[in-house]
Amino acid sequence: MSRAPDTWILTADCPSLLGTVDAVTRYLYEQQCYVTEHHSFDDRLSARFFIRVEFRQPEAFDEQAFRAGLAARGEAFGMTFELTAPRHRPKVVIMVSKADHCLNDLLYRQRIGQLAMDVVAVISNHPDLEPLAHWHRIPYYHFALDPQDKPAQERKVLQVIETSGAELVILARYMQVLSPELCQRLDGWAINIHHSLLPGFKGAKPYHQAYNKGVKLVGATAHYINNDLDEGPIIAQGVEAVDHSHYPEDLIARGRDIECLTLARAVGYHIERRVFLNANRTVVL
Amino acid sequence: MSRAPDTWILTADCPSLLGTVDAVTRYLYEQQCYVTEHHSFDDRLSARFFIRVEFRQPEAFDEQAFRAGLAARGEAFGMTFELTAPRHRPKVVIMVSKADHCLNDLLYRQRIGQLAMDVVAVISNHPDLEPLAHWHRIPYYHFALDPQDKPAQERKVLQVIETSGAELVILARYMQVLSPELCQRLDGWAINIHHSLLPGFKGAKPYHQAYNKGVKLVGATAHYINNDLDEGPIIAQGVEAVDHSHYPEDLIARGRDIECLTLARAVGYHIERRVFLNANRTVVL
Amino acid sequence: MSRAPDTWILTADCPSLLGTVDAVTRYLYEQQCYVTEHHSFDDRLSARFFIRVEFRQPEAFDEQAFRAGLAARGEAFGMTFELTAPRHRPKVVIMVSKADHCLNDLLYRQRIGQLAMDVVAVISNHPDLEPLAHWHRIPYYHFALDPQDKPAQERKVLQVIETSGAELVILARYMQVLSPELCQRLDGWAINIHHSLLPGFKGAKPYHQAYNKGVKLVGATAHYINNDLDEGPIIAQGVEAVDHSHYPEDLIARGRDIECLTLARAVGYHIERRVFLNANRTVVL
Amino acid sequence: MSRAPDTWILTADCPSLLGTVDAVTRYLYEQQCYVTEHHSFDDRLSARFFIRVEFRQPEAFDEQAFRAGLAARGEAFGMTFELTAPRHRPKVVIMVSKADHCLNDLLYRQRIGQLAMDVVAVISNHPDLEPLAHWHRIPYYHFALDPQDKPAQERKVLQVIETSGAELVILARYMQVLSPELCQRLDGWAINIHHSLLPGFKGAKPYHQAYNKGVKLVGATAHYINNDLDEGPIIAQGVEAVDHSHYPEDLIARGRDIECLTLARAVGYHIERRVFLNANRTVVL
Repeated sequence: MSRAPDTWILTADCPSLLGTVDAVTRYLYEQQCYVTEHHSFDDRLSARFFIRVEFRQPEAFDEQAFRAGLAARGEAFGMTFELTAPRHRPKVVIMVSKADHCLNDLLYRQRIGQLAMDVVAVISNHPDLEPLAHWHRIPYYHFALDPQDKPAQERKVLQVIETSGAELVILARYMQVLSPELCQRLDGWAINIHHSLLPGFKGAKPYHQAYNKGVKLVGATAHYINNDLDEGPIIAQGVEAVDHSHYPEDLIARGRDIECLTLARAVGYHIERRVFLNANRTVVL
Repeated sequence: MSRAPDTWILTADCPSLLGTVDAVTRYLYEQQCYVTEHHSFDDRLSARFFIRVEFRQPEAFDEQAFRAGLAARGEAFGMTFELTAPRHRPKVVIMVSKADHCLNDLLYRQRIGQLAMDVVAVISNHPDLEPLAHWHRIPYYHFALDPQDKPAQERKVLQVIETSGAELVILARYMQVLSPELCQRLDGWAINIHHSLLPGFKGAKPYHQAYNKGVKLVGATAHYINNDLDEGPIIAQGVEAVDHSHYPEDLIARGRDIECLTLARAVGYHIERRVFLNANRTVVL
Repeated sequence: MSRAPDTWILTADCPSLLGTVDAVTRYLYEQQCYVTEHHSFDDRLSARFFIRVEFRQPEAFDEQAFRAGLAARGEAFGMTFELTAPRHRPKVVIMVSKADHCLNDLLYRQRIGQLAMDVVAVISNHPDLEPLAHWHRIPYYHFALDPQDKPAQERKVLQVIETSGAELVILARYMQVLSPELCQRLDGWAINIHHSLLPGFKGAKPYHQAYNKGVKLVGATAHYINNDLDEGPIIAQGVEAVDHSHYPEDLIARGRDIECLTLARAVGYHIERRVFLNANRTVVL
Repeated sequence: MSRAPDTWILTADCPSLLGTVDAVTRYLYEQQCYVTEHHSFDDRLSARFFIRVEFRQPEAFDEQAFRAGLAARGEAFGMTFELTAPRHRPKVVIMVSKADHCLNDLLYRQRIGQLAMDVVAVISNHPDLEPLAHWHRIPYYHFALDPQDKPAQERKVLQVIETSGAELVILARYMQVLSPELCQRLDGWAINIHHSLLPGFKGAKPYHQAYNKGVKLVGATAHYINNDLDEGPIIAQGVEAVDHSHYPEDLIARGRDIECLTLARAVGYHIERRVFLNANRTVVL
């Protein structure tokens, strides 16, 4: 589970073909790389192969040469791969509104080293969470929404994201519907937390919907953004038991913990390169 | 939790008013009834009061007089109540199709005394589960569906239910849509198990729907029948984690346990008189 | 669940006797108090009765007279009771060492109003968590341990607790064994979080013990302090699945969330007056 | 998850060395075997490597030659392996006393195909469960315990096991302490279900112990037999929430479901060759 400090991550995927595993593992052996964990999965319905390997490099290791050699091997399989260096910490931008529980939780996990990421900016349409960001010494961008000109606000958001060098955007209860253009731009590298067990209770006020329906479980869903609201590929889901004595405000309070845990789990999977897109579904190795 | 053999159950509900609890508890005390468990809940949104009490009777106890006295006390509050005798075992009819996991589970729990009920009939549109019913010495009624005349089959079903003296009907994966007339007839005393976390994945093949959506949790919902398919008041829900490696047939297999557990829990609540209807929601005390 | 702002809490317990429920509920009715939630439990093995009621006062309400009247009623039953005013927020002292996850979590829940308490002091044998306490504007007392004179440190600790007016002490991973004298002093009003599912893995380094045993579940136990280490009455327990790939440091990381959640739940129960001591067990209504 | 009908399972383990993965995967590729799932784990504390692969054979496949070739490859690594044919169903002996919930559950799962095993005998020290075994057309051996001569009974037990050709023995609440000799004989291929979260509440009457301790969670542990009572390597654990209202008999009732589920999960892992022994711990791939 815990990666040793000298461990690389290699992930790859390609169509299902005889020899895909061997192409990767033989190459690693030839390069004198020591495999510490290996998980591969061949999806027989979509006929697609996914692999994730953690390995220790030999003393002499030329990353560029390694990449070139692997690309050559994978070419026959149509394989695409990603290689993540031992101490790599992705830059992350977090977007919030007024609710701070997910932000507080993510920053805490960064601070104690549980999430190996560098949050480089917090962006919000409200000024409320600036003190929290500043206590963690993270720049805070307050871009108020102008209902007459939402695109203007999104341009500012996008500019911060792009100049920050972020590899991941986290919508930690941002509460605004993004334009199709921004969704398109963030497709596959932005994670949203929705406070229901999708596909139940899409859209606004899911806890009020859940109360009216009289459910006995509430939950949260962390998913990648795509251009269809609340419909992107699901990474993680969590659930909590409730009963008749929980009014809507109780469901909201009850849901906070499971939102935090579910979002943090999904972010962790993403950072550890465990998540693969497989059409509208995910493979988590 | 476990009722002592000499314990009565009293349940009642009425509009929220000052004195509702006292009306019940004072009467019980005056009748020398010993309260072993008491739970009441006042729903401030629907302004309705619900109470469930377990009590031991005094040596001399006249049930009819007790009922009459309580009815008189409750009249001012518009209170309706139910009184369940210590060793009462409700008669139950179970309806099934071909899948036997829920039936097997319910009959097992009856046999070992965990569900204090008497299953008096199993009804199916298929002959497959007759041996299982017969091993438990329970009459099995096979009423095949005639697509040209579904009402004829339902009339036979209803006749068995009505002549059996059943207080509860359990749809243990019956898999047929009931007519509005039969739904109407069973409203509030028939429990269905749906193999998804309602309101997600209503209707047919919920596990296939869940696979296509790529969810990370599957679940089951036990609810009372009403005349809107898969929309009756929810009694219990259960959930199970799944991942990308679960094909639809794996979700089906994985779901069996949680369907059994969720249905058995709901039936137990019903038999122990823990469930109250509160518009389209339930209160479970 | 969520108490309305004008709701009192009444809790009481006494030996099992006919009329205990009525003694409380009749009195509430006579005082024109409106009961919104009522839960009582009669433990047939210890022959003891426990009751918790939430109620709204009438417009004119004299607390002293109410108390006096209730005491008179309860006398025949040997009943002791506690009455908690609608907006009462207990003062709380939190003790920590170096690990900050539980402290961070408790202060966050206080800040957003989920735990209705006022943390008036944080005490530690290390200086590390002072910035966190100060960001929440809470006094921080660093009393280093002198191995030659542990009683001296405990005297300082106790002085802060006593002068603070605290109604509750929380050991949020304090990591020091308290002396029998201090345990005695805190008996019944100090909550400790132990990072295992007691009674498994008592004492030091429970996650390392769990790793060596090869368990597939780790957990946490929140319990009242008594004078036997890790043996006080249990209030809440939580659990998390683990597997062979979790080294001891992973179990520690994995356990943080469940420690926070379990401790917060126990503290919430305590503050809402849901916990009763019943010999070495608790009743949580 | 669900194995296709033509899928072999290959499992192997050996000391940690460079090239272990490659030794297996290259061989599979050379033999034109198509890998559908692959999971390997290198335990850095015990310096031991574990691998489990599911693969489809090529049209022409000579099992003996395949085994010989793999043995030759693995020799340099000190690798031991097991190969399981696509439709292999291990023979299983189940041992019981009077409680039938685990037996009922296991036989049900066999009947519907969820556990791909053939139960060839049920052995008990009581006659009670004979009808259940016979309904499933399984021979039932009633060997009463003679307190004066326990070894005599164990000899009969062992004889049935040995003549049955069983690959797995399941102690489905057998409730007798086995002699060291029998434990020795069953070491590593007999699974026991203990009705507590080991290492808590070893030995007799764990639910009564749990009640006295006042725990808020009860659980079950499935583990391999070794010669130290309740101390064999853990395969699976499950847990269920309880509260003060559960008397010992309620804990027993409550525990039944989790015992069944935990035992069935462990048996499934064993049958699918997912469990490896790693000193006193297990690796479950």
